[in-house]
Amino acid sequence: MTKLYNDPARFTEDMLVGFLDANARYVAGVPGGVVRAHRTRPGKVAVVIGGGSGHYPAFCGTVGPGFADGAVVGNIFTSPSAEEAASVARAAHGDAGVLLTTGNYAGDVMNFGLAVTQLRGEGIDAHYFAVTDDIASAPRGEEEKRRGIAGDFTVFKCASAAAEEGLDLAGVVRVAEAANAATRTLGVAFDGCTMPGADHPLFTVPEGTMGVGLGIHGEPGVADEPMPTAEALARTLVDGVLADRPDAQSTRLAVILNGLGRTKYEELFVVWGTVAALLRDRGYDIVEPEVGELVTSLDMAGCSLTVMWLDEELERYWTAPADTPAYRKGATADTGAPGERRTAEELQSGASSPALDELSDEEGRRGARVVARALAAMADMLADAEDELGRIDAVAGDGDHGRGMVKGSAAAREAAERALAAGGGQGSVLAEAGKDWAAKAGGTSGVLWGALLAALGARLGDTGRPDGQTVAGGMRDGYDALVSLGGAAPGDKTMLDALLPFVDDLERRVSDGASWQDAWRDAAAVAADAAAATADMRPKVGRARPLAERSLGTPDAGATSLAMCLRTVADTFTSTPTPSKGE
Amino acid sequence: MTKLYNDPARFTEDMLVGFLDANARYVAGVPGGVVRAHRTRPGKVAVVIGGGSGHYPAFCGTVGPGFADGAVVGNIFTSPSAEEAASVARAAHGDAGVLLTTGNYAGDVMNFGLAVTQLRGEGIDAHYFAVTDDIASAPRGEEEKRRGIAGDFTVFKCASAAAEEGLDLAGVVRVAEAANAATRTLGVAFDGCTMPGADHPLFTVPEGTMGVGLGIHGEPGVADEPMPTAEALARTLVDGVLADRPDAQSTRLAVILNGLGRTKYEELFVVWGTVAALLRDRGYDIVEPEVGELVTSLDMAGCSLTVMWLDEELERYWTAPADTPAYRKGATADTGAPGERRTAEELQSGASSPALDELSDEEGRRGARVVARALAAMADMLADAEDELGRIDAVAGDGDHGRGMVKGSAAAREAAERALAAGGGQGSVLAEAGKDWAAKAGGTSGVLWGALLAALGARLGDTGRPDGQTVAGGMRDGYDALVSLGGAAPGDKTMLDALLPFVDDLERRVSDGASWQDAWRDAAAVAADAAAATADMRPKVGRARPLAERSLGTPDAGATSLAMCLRTVADTFTSTPTPSKGE
Repeated sequence: MTKLYNDPARFTEDMLVGFLDANARYVAGVPGGVVRAHRTRPGKVAVVIGGGSGHYPAFCGTVGPGFADGAVVGNIFTSPSAEEAASVARAAHGDAGVLLTTGNYAGDVMNFGLAVTQLRGEGIDAHYFAVTDDIASAPRGEEEKRRGIAGDFTVFKCASAAAEEGLDLAGVVRVAEAANAATRTLGVAFDGCTMPGADHPLFTVPEGTMGVGLGIHGEPGVADEPMPTAEALARTLVDGVLADRPDAQSTRLAVILNGLGRTKYEELFVVWGTVAALLRDRGYDIVEPEVGELVTSLDMAGCSLTVMWLDEELERYWTAPADTPAYRKGATADTGAPGERRTAEELQSGASSPALDELSDEEGRRGARVVARALAAMADMLADAEDELGRIDAVAGDGDHGRGMVKGSAAAREAAERALAAGGGQGSVLAEAGKDWAAKAGGTSGVLWGALLAALGARLGDTGRPDGQTVAGGMRDGYDALVSLGGAAPGDKTMLDALLPFVDDLERRVSDGASWQDAWRDAAAVAADAAAATADMRPKVGRARPLAERSLGTPDAGATSLAMCLRTVADTFTSTPTPSKGE
Repeated sequence: MTKLYNDPARFTEDMLVGFLDANARYVAGVPGGVVRAHRTRPGKVAVVIGGGSGHYPAFCGTVGPGFADGAVVGNIFTSPSAEEAASVARAAHGDAGVLLTTGNYAGDVMNFGLAVTQLRGEGIDAHYFAVTDDIASAPRGEEEKRRGIAGDFTVFKCASAAAEEGLDLAGVVRVAEAANAATRTLGVAFDGCTMPGADHPLFTVPEGTMGVGLGIHGEPGVADEPMPTAEALARTLVDGVLADRPDAQSTRLAVILNGLGRTKYEELFVVWGTVAALLRDRGYDIVEPEVGELVTSLDMAGCSLTVMWLDEELERYWTAPADTPAYRKGATADTGAPGERRTAEELQSGASSPALDELSDEEGRRGARVVARALAAMADMLADAEDELGRIDAVAGDGDHGRGMVKGSAAAREAAERALAAGGGQGSVLAEAGKDWAAKAGGTSGVLWGALLAALGARLGDTGRPDGQTVAGGMRDGYDALVSLGGAAPGDKTMLDALLPFVDDLERRVSDGASWQDAWRDAAAVAADAAAATADMRPKVGRARPLAERSLGTPDAGATSLAMCLRTVADTFTSTPTPSKGE
């Protein structure tokens, strides 16, 4: 578990301070993340990578000559905001455009996509690309639905080397696409990780078993299997990856055996001995393999095998030199003379986003007041309901659900008030509230609530008055983000079992012409019924659900608290005072 | 815990196969460890580092230009044998002598010291140096008793850079001494690590607390404290290290914030932010700091702060380029053209030790038969006593002591028989038996029994008939190794409480003129009484001993089994048949 932190809500900020200090010869901080310490040279495309943090050296550890020009740094396991992505891209941009690239997660796709729109509006040629290497996350034929895991590394490395070589933005995008099409990863996990400040792991893997295809944030995999020997694991990984071989004729492979954080180098080398032998037995040549921690998940136990089928061009990019805080390869002189060192002033001002009040308009600030009022009402309601939620949770869980919801909603209320005071619109207020909810609540429900608010905020934006389609779309985005992040499906007896009926009902009612406030109120009643109906469900057996039978007859605590919150929010619409002229 | 392995007894060998395969452009395997893939150039001193494995990237991960010429690779947390150290040194040696250097542990000091003697006998100019950076392991004024932990890295780095620069052996030794005199480390641990194949951690740290000064194998520290914030920890580490400041006027510091395996880079960066600020506040300049995993302990949770006070020469060596599997720094061209690539034949034959039967003489092989018979008798006795030992252990422990002793002693018997059949002398038979005991038994007692046999074997050697002083000295070496490795002291209710009276009594009797066989038999009776007397002791409160009161009235299982083994060994002397002429 994560043991060392000060304020869990400031973990990522504190981490960045130390990272930047220790690596000042490589990197400099800008709002939203980091860029190389030296300016991007004229004519060179900038490559900006990113996603949530907790994956070091991914992503900020690979910013430097031969690799990325900048990294956007979100909170742990949480997508950075669109504004953060745009900020880092602005700072990294030279004069030849910028490729923004992340793994394929709903939050990253949404926020980096919005950043591209914003950058183009500012006259910066920008493109977004999402890596989809995880073969366990969707079947063949649906490659575009797959997540990005350790294959992020091969794709980011090749795209960055192509940019270093001088390709234009279209060329760099083409290389990213080719590298992604040639890359396959299969991962396994043996034990979960614990977020800073949380008492319990984000997920667990039953003792003596291995989750095959489990995602790097605990997203569900394809099978639970008994813990194998190192040799048997090597065979599982090699067979799995080769069975998903792309349409590539090459027998030359870039290979990564990646440790997720707690599976140590000694163990990885034991597995690698068999992996290398199996690949060679099958006629492959292994080109400059990497065995180590390249894309981690805090101190999660597990590893993954990534293979990129090389053509002549990808091999050149894979083997090209790089010189970054956490990854160095070949002679650094080959990466060419660096540009000029950035000035402190440039780092502070050049990349910085406009202040919150510059992003919002009058309508957006009006919406922000509605949002802040709703969050305050939720925090009040949850403080009263803490014991009741704790009792429900204790029937088959650890009884801390009420505590987590109280901590999270209180932090969200405070963050929303700060953002409101700074002139933020509804989108920024939700984004700030989500960040602090996730950071302060700890545990899975905190992360999920944070993602829900962030997704809604990204859709609503800071300007204009959202219509019913936008509000319903934002809640649908939130639902999608939770499915992607939380590793549960409807019927698993989780908050999704209240959220999905709510979103479906909300969408239908606004399509039928209801105001979104009316639709929300009616949909909240549907959610309450759905939450009550979870009493008849068994939690999905497997991870962290050993008390399935005992929970029969008791509704899910997460579904219950969600329905209560939706209802509380609806009540604030009803009681919303008419704005006075002064507002 | 260590999850991935095939046969735990072959973990290190399997690890080396994968390590060498993945890093073939840097390193090649030789008996006992690894050397650079290219020959040491004429006129360059070779630096050979080492110790037990489980500390990656220490030690084999830092073999390459600018750093070590070779690394001796022992089993997990276990000193390599003298023969292994000599083998790697022979292979790494060019024509200008070799520095062998390790952390200051009894087993390493013994075995690397023996290797130096052996190498000098072969005409190779060799010197040994032990690093003593761990300020928690002995007070000021007794620096020579301190252990080596992450300061191994600064000392090995500077000595290696000095050798790369062309200093002669005396000069390289001088730099190692200067770097060590200028280096101080303080470490903390939050959770123990689990050996391959073991069910339980080697040691534990109570939940919510931190062991200050805890060694990298769980050796005792100076204090147990409540788990601090990252800022408070930074202050503890900085204050502790600076309070032990050597007589150096410099304000320029090389600094390492080292993670032990499970404390991830994100957490280290959070701590580093405060460490860097505190050091600068006190007027220090930080020169090219390292924040990351440089000297680990499997997946132990914890970290350490190392500071080396720099003069002009040490700063030059600290900042010099290096290019190794796990540590790359600066432009590799600066390290000079490599020597010729080694041939496969050279790697197989050049460094290899003589076969076991070439090392031993007739007397040594006779002694080997005595040893093998004693180990077989112990294995038989323990198989009968398994349930009894398990019951004793279950009173206040986990009840697996009998199982561990049976597994370990059975493995030791088999290994001894193999070594005997290969013509090994008494030292080699004990060394092989110790290795397999530690590997197969798992758990702390397995490691300790392995170290005890290894220490005795190193003292007895493979030639000649050992006299009483030598046998008693070997058991004293074994006791010292256990104290150093196991983290307990007499009175803690461990096997030491039977072993120390045995060793004291054995030494006195042989000094008084008794044959060692007679002395052993009488001393074994003393050990049995001492083991019984542990029933009145409370296990030391702290690590892994929560049931102190419950154990009152029951003797310690480890002390009991040790006394039984000593008695069983004595019985084999009595019943030793006179060798027939044919033997």
